[in-house]
Amino acid sequence: MKKTILLFSGDLDKAFAAFIIANGALAMGDEVTMFFTFWGLNALRKPNPPSVAKKIVEKMFGWMMPRGADKLTLSKMHMAGMGTAMMKGVMKQKNVQSLPVLIKLAQENGAQLIACSMSMDVMGLHQEELLEGVEIGGVATFLGEADESNATLFI
Amino acid sequence: MKKTILLFSGDLDKAFAAFIIANGALAMGDEVTMFFTFWGLNALRKPNPPSVAKKIVEKMFGWMMPRGADKLTLSKMHMAGMGTAMMKGVMKQKNVQSLPVLIKLAQENGAQLIACSMSMDVMGLHQEELLEGVEIGGVATFLGEADESNATLFI
Amino acid sequence: MKKTILLFSGDLDKAFAAFIIANGALAMGDEVTMFFTFWGLNALRKPNPPSVAKKIVEKMFGWMMPRGADKLTLSKMHMAGMGTAMMKGVMKQKNVQSLPVLIKLAQENGAQLIACSMSMDVMGLHQEELLEGVEIGGVATFLGEADESNATLFI
Repeated sequence: MKKTILLFSGDLDKAFAAFIIANGALAMGDEVTMFFTFWGLNALRKPNPPSVAKKIVEKMFGWMMPRGADKLTLSKMHMAGMGTAMMKGVMKQKNVQSLPVLIKLAQENGAQLIACSMSMDVMGLHQEELLEGVEIGGVATFLGEADESNATLFI
Repeated sequence: MKKTILLFSGDLDKAFAAFIIANGALAMGDEVTMFFTFWGLNALRKPNPPSVAKKIVEKMFGWMMPRGADKLTLSKMHMAGMGTAMMKGVMKQKNVQSLPVLIKLAQENGAQLIACSMSMDVMGLHQEELLEGVEIGGVATFLGEADESNATLFI
Repeated sequence: MKKTILLFSGDLDKAFAAFIIANGALAMGDEVTMFFTFWGLNALRKPNPPSVAKKIVEKMFGWMMPRGADKLTLSKMHMAGMGTAMMKGVMKQKNVQSLPVLIKLAQENGAQLIACSMSMDVMGLHQEELLEGVEIGGVATFLGEADESNATLFI
């Protein structure tokens, strides 16, 4: 059975939860579609994207938002980086996979990753700045996937 | 197929996502029920409501919370208003409809908008302070709608 | 019909919404499974837990996070405690049940409360620190419950 996950949040902990659920579902034989919108797009940004022509305001969004899964921070207890570093450290110690690894695994195991075209347009993000294999779609794509799913989560 | 959206958040970006999904679903021929609770109620407040008799604490909630869809702010990068203004500016430039317009469209296209009675009671909001056409219901109403839907989102 | 609620958030208002929905569903004859992960686990902590052996970093998490449902705070307008106290006061006045009471009622009425084993491990929480009757499970447990439910909410 298909699961559709819409990742709206750009928080490390929420992105982490989304990909833990996605990988769990894939392991259980489910199909998984993930739709990334607003701040959720940041999880898909390449750490070192090719340079693309942008307007000033698009450049500003690009600078202010975290560049990729490894730069996301906790929604709570970030504490100027200390809390986020502590959480990452504990996870590593407990052999919990990092977010970039979870994203890679989800892709390898067949999750469909779709970036919201309207959010990309508003935030000035171009396809070549996002991870390889990410598709682009709109709200109709998301709703079509939800119609085929037995659970749709907004995270 | 029906979609039920519970809007709990009072953030501009989340309310925006909720109404983009709602209008998308309506365009695809779905029925849509939206249930507004807690901070989500603020999206339904009239900008210039009639005056109603309130207790002190109800007045305080009324003053502290944003009065209507046009007053909501971003969950991230609000930056004392600069980020929210920048986002609104970019959206306008990209011909993305504003939140008040999206709400109007949803209502015109048949979305059922239901305000949570318990939240209204706690926050001291009266029906005449909310947009015309908004109904009032409780958690049983929400659950009944969810039972008829093939996707229910908590936003 | 079963409802599955994943509580990720440790905010008072969101935990409150989760348990209002859970108790509403139980009252309507639904089965309810609630899965607690990340900050959501804090709602299940005993106010006065037995002492357990912990590493330094686990103790730190324990100190920094709210100990139990009665210590959670609002996601908005917490205002150094004033907003949270005001909200609790108004709710009491309006005869709305408190979060600890709602949790107790949900348990008494048959809701299955499951704490996420991976989050417990990361945050260093032990079963004896959580409320009596809480079970432990992983993402596969959550997904199995979602497969049996006609609505699954991520809160």
